[in-house]
Amino acid sequence: MTGKRIYAFGGGTADGNASMKALLGGKGANLAEMAAIGLPVPPGFTITTECCKAYSDALGRMPGGLMAEVRTAVADVEKLLGRQFGATTKPLLFSVRSGAAASMPGMMDTVLNLGLNPDTVEALAKETGNARFAWDSYRRFVTMFGDVVAGVPRKKFDAELEAAKKRTKVVRDADMPAEELQSIVGLLLRVYERHAGKPFPTDPWEQLERSIEAVFRSWNNMRAVEYRRIHKIRGLIGTAVNVQAMVFGNLNENSATGVGFTRDPSTGENTFFCDVLFNAQGEDVVAGLRTPENIDALAKRQPAVHTQLMQVRQTLEQHYRDMQDMEFTIQDGELFVLQTRNGKRTARAALRIALSLVDEGLLTRDEALLKIEASSLNQLLHPTFDPKAKKLVIASGIPASPGAAKGRAVFHPDTAEKYAARNERVILVREETSPEDIKGMAAAQGILTARGGRTSHAAVVARQMGKCCVAGCSSLEIDEHARIFRVGTHTVREGDVLSINGGTGEVMLGDVPTVPPELSGDFNIVMQWSDELRLLGVRANADTPADAAKAREFGAQGIGLCRTEHMFFDSARINRMREMILARSHEQKQAALAHLLPMQREDFIGLFEAMDGLPVTIRLLDPPLHEFLPHDPAIQQVIADELEVPVKVVRDRVAALHEVNPMLGLRGCRLGIVEPMIYDMQVQAIIEAVRETEQRGRKVDAEIMIPLVGTVDELRRLRRRIEDQLRRFNLERGARVKVKIGTMIEVPRAALTADKVAEEADFFSFGTNDLTQMTLGVSRDDAEKGFLIEYVVQGVYPTDPFATIDEEGVGKLVEMGVKLGRATRPGLKVGICGEHGGDPESIDFCHRVGMDYVSCSPYRVPIARLAAAQAAIRHGRSNHENAKTQK
Amino acid sequence: MTGKRIYAFGGGTADGNASMKALLGGKGANLAEMAAIGLPVPPGFTITTECCKAYSDALGRMPGGLMAEVRTAVADVEKLLGRQFGATTKPLLFSVRSGAAASMPGMMDTVLNLGLNPDTVEALAKETGNARFAWDSYRRFVTMFGDVVAGVPRKKFDAELEAAKKRTKVVRDADMPAEELQSIVGLLLRVYERHAGKPFPTDPWEQLERSIEAVFRSWNNMRAVEYRRIHKIRGLIGTAVNVQAMVFGNLNENSATGVGFTRDPSTGENTFFCDVLFNAQGEDVVAGLRTPENIDALAKRQPAVHTQLMQVRQTLEQHYRDMQDMEFTIQDGELFVLQTRNGKRTARAALRIALSLVDEGLLTRDEALLKIEASSLNQLLHPTFDPKAKKLVIASGIPASPGAAKGRAVFHPDTAEKYAARNERVILVREETSPEDIKGMAAAQGILTARGGRTSHAAVVARQMGKCCVAGCSSLEIDEHARIFRVGTHTVREGDVLSINGGTGEVMLGDVPTVPPELSGDFNIVMQWSDELRLLGVRANADTPADAAKAREFGAQGIGLCRTEHMFFDSARINRMREMILARSHEQKQAALAHLLPMQREDFIGLFEAMDGLPVTIRLLDPPLHEFLPHDPAIQQVIADELEVPVKVVRDRVAALHEVNPMLGLRGCRLGIVEPMIYDMQVQAIIEAVRETEQRGRKVDAEIMIPLVGTVDELRRLRRRIEDQLRRFNLERGARVKVKIGTMIEVPRAALTADKVAEEADFFSFGTNDLTQMTLGVSRDDAEKGFLIEYVVQGVYPTDPFATIDEEGVGKLVEMGVKLGRATRPGLKVGICGEHGGDPESIDFCHRVGMDYVSCSPYRVPIARLAAAQAAIRHGRSNHENAKTQK
Repeated sequence: MTGKRIYAFGGGTADGNASMKALLGGKGANLAEMAAIGLPVPPGFTITTECCKAYSDALGRMPGGLMAEVRTAVADVEKLLGRQFGATTKPLLFSVRSGAAASMPGMMDTVLNLGLNPDTVEALAKETGNARFAWDSYRRFVTMFGDVVAGVPRKKFDAELEAAKKRTKVVRDADMPAEELQSIVGLLLRVYERHAGKPFPTDPWEQLERSIEAVFRSWNNMRAVEYRRIHKIRGLIGTAVNVQAMVFGNLNENSATGVGFTRDPSTGENTFFCDVLFNAQGEDVVAGLRTPENIDALAKRQPAVHTQLMQVRQTLEQHYRDMQDMEFTIQDGELFVLQTRNGKRTARAALRIALSLVDEGLLTRDEALLKIEASSLNQLLHPTFDPKAKKLVIASGIPASPGAAKGRAVFHPDTAEKYAARNERVILVREETSPEDIKGMAAAQGILTARGGRTSHAAVVARQMGKCCVAGCSSLEIDEHARIFRVGTHTVREGDVLSINGGTGEVMLGDVPTVPPELSGDFNIVMQWSDELRLLGVRANADTPADAAKAREFGAQGIGLCRTEHMFFDSARINRMREMILARSHEQKQAALAHLLPMQREDFIGLFEAMDGLPVTIRLLDPPLHEFLPHDPAIQQVIADELEVPVKVVRDRVAALHEVNPMLGLRGCRLGIVEPMIYDMQVQAIIEAVRETEQRGRKVDAEIMIPLVGTVDELRRLRRRIEDQLRRFNLERGARVKVKIGTMIEVPRAALTADKVAEEADFFSFGTNDLTQMTLGVSRDDAEKGFLIEYVVQGVYPTDPFATIDEEGVGKLVEMGVKLGRATRPGLKVGICGEHGGDPESIDFCHRVGMDYVSCSPYRVPIARLAAAQAAIRHGRSNHENAKTQK
Repeated sequence: MTGKRIYAFGGGTADGNASMKALLGGKGANLAEMAAIGLPVPPGFTITTECCKAYSDALGRMPGGLMAEVRTAVADVEKLLGRQFGATTKPLLFSVRSGAAASMPGMMDTVLNLGLNPDTVEALAKETGNARFAWDSYRRFVTMFGDVVAGVPRKKFDAELEAAKKRTKVVRDADMPAEELQSIVGLLLRVYERHAGKPFPTDPWEQLERSIEAVFRSWNNMRAVEYRRIHKIRGLIGTAVNVQAMVFGNLNENSATGVGFTRDPSTGENTFFCDVLFNAQGEDVVAGLRTPENIDALAKRQPAVHTQLMQVRQTLEQHYRDMQDMEFTIQDGELFVLQTRNGKRTARAALRIALSLVDEGLLTRDEALLKIEASSLNQLLHPTFDPKAKKLVIASGIPASPGAAKGRAVFHPDTAEKYAARNERVILVREETSPEDIKGMAAAQGILTARGGRTSHAAVVARQMGKCCVAGCSSLEIDEHARIFRVGTHTVREGDVLSINGGTGEVMLGDVPTVPPELSGDFNIVMQWSDELRLLGVRANADTPADAAKAREFGAQGIGLCRTEHMFFDSARINRMREMILARSHEQKQAALAHLLPMQREDFIGLFEAMDGLPVTIRLLDPPLHEFLPHDPAIQQVIADELEVPVKVVRDRVAALHEVNPMLGLRGCRLGIVEPMIYDMQVQAIIEAVRETEQRGRKVDAEIMIPLVGTVDELRRLRRRIEDQLRRFNLERGARVKVKIGTMIEVPRAALTADKVAEEADFFSFGTNDLTQMTLGVSRDDAEKGFLIEYVVQGVYPTDPFATIDEEGVGKLVEMGVKLGRATRPGLKVGICGEHGGDPESIDFCHRVGMDYVSCSPYRVPIARLAAAQAAIRHGRSNHENAKTQK
């Protein structure tokens, strides 16, 4: 760290600007930008993220000389405002806020009203003529400092306040008389001393230094690390610290604090979406402790301020060319802007805003597409409640994040995780949520809170996660301890099923039926633009005609992966499969397979018809055979009875098929070579299905894909066998059926020797799930309980390598595989069918290595279309073409 | 196939020569060579291996026009000998023998006396005046043709012969009168017709064509495939077919058949080692049906032939510059040489012969070293029976393959495999062995047969495998069905323990104590020459001071892998380890580790002292923790009692540690990161041990090796932690302990990103066992029951990739790893510590990629030294140096 460490802003100028997010954090960079373009920003300064890194690197020592520079910066603010930090007349107070390059709402800590002590509080009371305000500010300061700097449990402070409210029978904080507040502050200072082990600091400089340190420290607290993990925020070195002169929304009834979205973050409509809380400080809005009023209330009470705020809104949008999420404070009728950032939004809003901004001439089409987070489209593709369904609405809250969620009510984030681990859907019901709840929220289908508005923690995080949220449902009486809530005459216990509608705020008992989503015109325009721009094809992984139809509806250009084993797990078929596995003679095996053949043929006919001439890639049986047999002794007996074999036969076969490491065992093409009859049957079914579909006058483009190939010899043998089978069929039936034969590249060796493998392959499809397991040596089956989570949390892996492709390692193999394959077969068709095929970052990688297509689950097809277009915008056509033709 | 298909030899000239083994097979090439240098070879011709390949490729159709060319070649032989194929005067008979480029004794099939039919047999009888001979030849022909061409079970023919012998009370075949033989032939022809479904062919051309086809077919029979697999014979396209004019060792008492080694194949002494069987055909010797006489018997009976034979012996050795294994026939006093090849030999003999040939000026040192099969040295390094031990010798046979073997008697190859699978040592006891027994022989410690001499199947195969064999122990009465043998008053049942001495032929009851081997002067010379030539260092994998001492004795230059976990499996320690794993608090864990610390420290002091300044690479804990806990509920109870914890604690921990794919789970450096206390303890023990050993005035070169690294971040974290620990130690103790810190490269990702990994590594050691598992996606734990064996048998894998490195796949990663590592750190020290480090072919690869050293088990150190020298001879110094400096 060698550069400038402190960047001042205010008084119409600033050292920094909006482009310096890495160094100043998002908040600091935007404060500088706003100051420079003349918006009313209280003056202050930003300590750089490099200082935070230096603090971490020194294992928690403040960078040498930093506080001396802070004193100089404070002096500059003093000069601008004509106030003095720690003075007993016109004392200057500060807020201290964290702010990293990526927004992490509620994650980092804030201290307001810093600089108060027994002397300055009196000075403030005298200056404002409002002792209640001064002592209320002191109360807040002691609480926040105690909580975030000294680690005193917040509820210890809150308990004192609540007790005082009861004692004095006051309902609103604002009605608490000054004397009472003063005595509460005394109690709070004692609480502090008891827990912190030393008196509350009265020296403003000590307060300031310790608060700055606390912000630095908070960068690596568990919540922050967890948030970064969940949101894949990486590559940042630390947080900046913003020290800014206080302005007071809690000075009097002519004061207020507010947050606003310059457009509706749920729908994207061009209306100002704003919460105002009069006579309050900012933390009151975000915490959802009081229910705020809207912009009309402001227009009525303070029309001049309202006009000024609408002007600020327009300036911000024009300047940032995006919807902004801003914070402001009105101090005795004077407007101050405290923060702005690009606002989080629903997918629906993202589309609307992007298209509007193009219409308004603020963005080009390319820029607009890049503004839409591809993964967020997920939200648009899922069902909504059937409007015709009968439903028992038991309560109604604020529609905070759209969606239709159903699941069992749970009252604690840990419980949510437990249910989710058992694949049970849950609705997380909370008084209000806090950052500690994030993992539980991620595990839930939807979130229901009793307090807080559309900008509360629950609402912001839920929108970000694409989860349904109903907030501020104040009629709920929640007893989190007893795991129960009451509303009216209804009682809902943990495990009872609820349905919540994030679009209307309705809370319903039971499982309300849903209907498929209808995609908006905005969505269709964005998809059309994407299709015009993208160079990657998009296919779907689909195993049934229904999946295939859904995939086409979402725009899939083919099936990239049909997992035939899923067809065998059907209850009507699994016993035939088991008969085959348990057969003790060739003939028994043949007989069982002969029963499966017509079923498979019908499966394939269904797929071919649904896809109507688009390519359909069918992967031959992949999993180990033991997956079809039961491991529970009781069920083994049932199966034995059903199949009329001694239970010992079942038991012995299960034991014989047991493997220490099934991931690396007898499956995929190894089965095809060691037990060829299964593949023979599947190939026969495919050939017959192609023939029959064609005879019905439909076109078919069938691709047979061999899984788990590690050496070209495996592929060669199986290819010859398939070709022989096809030749015989065509000869016997006088047919002219054609199929392509290709392979998954999912064993590292196949990628390493892809030049050889390509000799026998009409196409490659990268199976990056297994390729990741083997290249990293990580079992995905053990990921949940294993070290993988720990590795991602600790940052050993920058991200979950099964969610986003590990470019450096696995990606290197993929790139080798593509290049070597095309060196042997120029123009070899290459795709990906692992789950990475639906992940925008991975799709960007697929574009860069010159793949032909990605294949993903049907619901991710629109995401892949947009992500592919974004990749093309970012890297251009030539990049993709070069990768494709490179030797 | 476009070239010449038939190569003639005989009459002092030949179309081919000894260098054409790939095309003519070893036998055919050497027949040509011998004919050309004037040795008495009966004339004939060789059909090329390409014809065999064409036959296989055409799925068993004879190459077009081949038989017409055969007729031309036959006509040339007829001209040379003045005889005619199929003629009723002076009929010409042929032998048809297979012969591939690599020798496969007993594997391929032979037909003798081809051309006989009811007419020619009479002509032969008339011409030789020996009807008994003629009919005996016909009997043999029918049997052999029926067996190998038509697939009629051999025992059906043998049964007729045995019945006739009983009927006529004849003991020796040779005493059977002609009329009796004629009637036997009649019976055999009916046996043939009954089993083959059609009459025995009388047309000599049909006999010839079908025999040639049978040889082609035999290339892919199970026995041949299995033999090639076991002996790693690959890259061959097929077998040649040798059609050669018959000469008759069974013509009269002045005739004989013989095989000879030009030097003693057991000791390498320069004496002619020869078995002769008078009045017999070749098959009688190899089958071991009659016990042959030696060279002295020939000298006595036919001194002129003896002199000629000794001359042939010398000519062959001078010409081939190696010990030869030859076959000859004496027909009525005239000597013919039928075959020669480099003779198989014991390791002891290989050394002796190689050194002698250098002394005799026939070979250079480099050539001599290349003649010694490095793996065979294994035989010299294992114990022999203690001469002072009491032993109960119950029988004595022919010492056919040296060694001291002990194990339970078993009477069937399958039983041998079953016992071996349970890790029980066995002695395979057989009447005689046949190619079907090969897998059982491989599973046994030693082989004991009742019949056959030093050139019998059992003896030849055992020597090749480096197994102890006592053959022809005729006093044994074996009942294979009852699983028992009797000898004198003793009865030995399946499961009884035997000891056999392959150097003396002694068979002993019970477990006779052994003493370590004493290495001969020849061995020391070869090692010395090897050390002068090789460029690779050789280290050993050793976990105990005893292993380390053994390794140094065998010439190891350091320890390349000390597996610290082996130290924990010691009974005195495992419970401490278990305590640690079961600990429910940090303190309990610390306490258990504190008990282990001094034990580990002593382990390391012992190793450092044993290695006396040579490098010692210590790998930190690698296996998953569950390996230390018992999975059997009964033992879980015992452990729980011992450790005074509820059994539920043990059970729960076992369940918690269970992984679906432990190979890809929580182990290696992952443990070091997730549960750092174990590594902390191990590192502390290493540091303290270095310090203490140095304080005793000894030198130490300690290398800490981190296993299972997949990303540089893992290595960086652990390296920092170790460095901090070391810094603290040195500061507190005023010490100056130094250690190197490096990593295993065993996860594919580590090899792919070796440039990054090298940033934090002082050295690399390739762990190719795990690297092979992950790169190929093959679980070694499941290899025995899985598809791996099948893959090797079917040739999908050309060889067992865990025995010899898969150069194309795994080798590519290794090469990348070496190059990328050295690109970051020029001169980075690189070794290998997987089992490939002791495999000669893999060592050759290690030389070529420019590694610094290989590390293998102590007993393979001499093998590695020789193999490294051979690699240096083959590829030269510059190749290795280039690989080392290449960027």
